[in-house]
Parts: sequence; structure tokens; C-alpha cells
Amino acid sequence: MLTRIDHVGIACRDLETTAEFYEATFGLRVVSREVITEQGVREAMLVVGDDRAAASYVQLLEPLGPGTPVGRFLERRGEGIHHVGYGVTDIEAALAAIGATGVRLIDSRPRHGSMGASIAFLHPADTGGVLTELVQPANS
Amino acid sequence: MLTRIDHVGIACRDLETTAEFYEATFGLRVVSREVITEQGVREAMLVVGDDRAAASYVQLLEPLGPGTPVGRFLERRGEGIHHVGYGVTDIEAALAAIGATGVRLIDSRPRHGSMGASIAFLHPADTGGVLTELVQPANS
Repeated sequence: MLTRIDHVGIACRDLETTAEFYEATFGLRVVSREVITEQGVREAMLVVGDDRAAASYVQLLEPLGPGTPVGRFLERRGEGIHHVGYGVTDIEAALAAIGATGVRLIDSRPRHGSMGASIAFLHPADTGGVLTELVQPANS
Repeated sequence: MLTRIDHVGIACRDLETTAEFYEATFGLRVVSREVITEQGVREAMLVVGDDRAAASYVQLLEPLGPGTPVGRFLERRGEGIHHVGYGVTDIEAALAAIGATGVRLIDSRPRHGSMGASIAFLHPADTGGVLTELVQPANS
């Protein structure tokens, strides 16, 4: 069902400083920047490696305000890994199959994510404390 | 420098229960089990997707005792994502380059990791709160 690790989502206080750190330290490069108002975040996607057909990303997340989900995460835990996103080929089928096992879905229907993807989050209380995201990339 | 996301390391209280959850819910399969006494963990590697030449893994980590690094993590934060590991082709060169930028190295020299890999951790205080591991796979 899961085709690959699509991205690791990392909460940070300053997107530009953190993106520059990843570029300078690890040689990654930013391939997309977006503000997703619905989720209360400003984000940057940095591609890891060169295989664009099945690329993985570091997703940096800066909250738009303290009351947003990522803002509350930073208040509670500080900067660090926020979630993991896995690639799927059919997100509606994946949600149906996972929901049928009893895992609660934060998003029972897919919504818009980074770079045109369809995404949905699963409830971390049902996934061993791991905020888990499913990602069906655009044009897949 | 970073070739791919090698794995996401997840701290759990019960390795077998958590591995069964990942198998039943997401269709992943365990491809390796090890006890790494030096790190105080019992672990399972579950492959994500089918591309074995550049596979990514979910690495489940159960502490061998409460005083181990993963045991202390569980005590402090509960179950959840513990670290992220990135693939590199030359870990000694990568450590030298990263160390030269000022990032402190937990392991200044590579040591033995999962499935015969050479690994090294970077200090999370210098990497935006993200415990970051470099992984040079066996036979690479």
C-alpha cells in the first residue's frame, strides 16, 4: 500500500534560516515554497537525492501563528520532526482500507497538500504516536 | 550529499505489537530484526515499497531498558518518531564536510548500524531539534 517515504515534516520557527541550513549543511535544494492557509503553515520542500520519479523530500513547516497545529507543536515540544508522509497510488482506497482496520482518520477524505498532491492524515493516537500522512502525488 | 531518506526511526514500547500493526495496517513487511546492545535497542526494519536498490525503511526501536537513549526518549516524550536517517555514499567524507560547517557530531567516526550499514548521528541541538543519522548501506 505504501510506495515510499514521501517526506519527513519538520517544524521550525524560521523557515528561511532552516532552509538555508539544510542547503548549506546537506546540499539539499528547495524545489517548492507554499503558504497553506488552511493548515496555518508556510512551508518549503527540499528534494533529497536526484530520482525525481520517486523523490523524497524534507518538508520544513513554519507556523503562521501560535494557535495553529504546528504553532502548538513548537510550544509543546520545540523544533523537530513533526510527521512522516508516505506515498500511495490511490489515496481513497488507502483511506478506506486503513479506516477499516480501526485507525481513526483525521481526514476521512483527501485534501490538497504540497505541490498539488492529495493528502490525508491519520490519528497519531492510533498509530503509535506517529502523526502519519498519506500522499498521492499530483499526476499519479 | 544525501542520496535518499534511508529510514524513519520510531520509538515504541513493544516491538512485536508495533511491527504487527505496521504489517496489518500498511502492508509493510519486516526484513530484518536485530538487537544492538551497544545502542540499547531491539529493532525491526520494515521495507517501504519494492525498490530494493534504493529502499527506504521504517525502523522500529524498543529500548532494552529505561536508562537507554530510547528508554529515556519514551519516558520524556512517549512513543513516536525518534530520528531520521539519510543515505550517503561516503560516510567519512560526509562527516568531514558536515563537521566543517560547525555541526557537532555525536559520532565523529562511523559505527555499525542496522543491516551491516555504517552510521553516524549528528547532534540535534545543531540540526534544528532533529536527531539526524547518516547511513552508508552495506556493500555500497
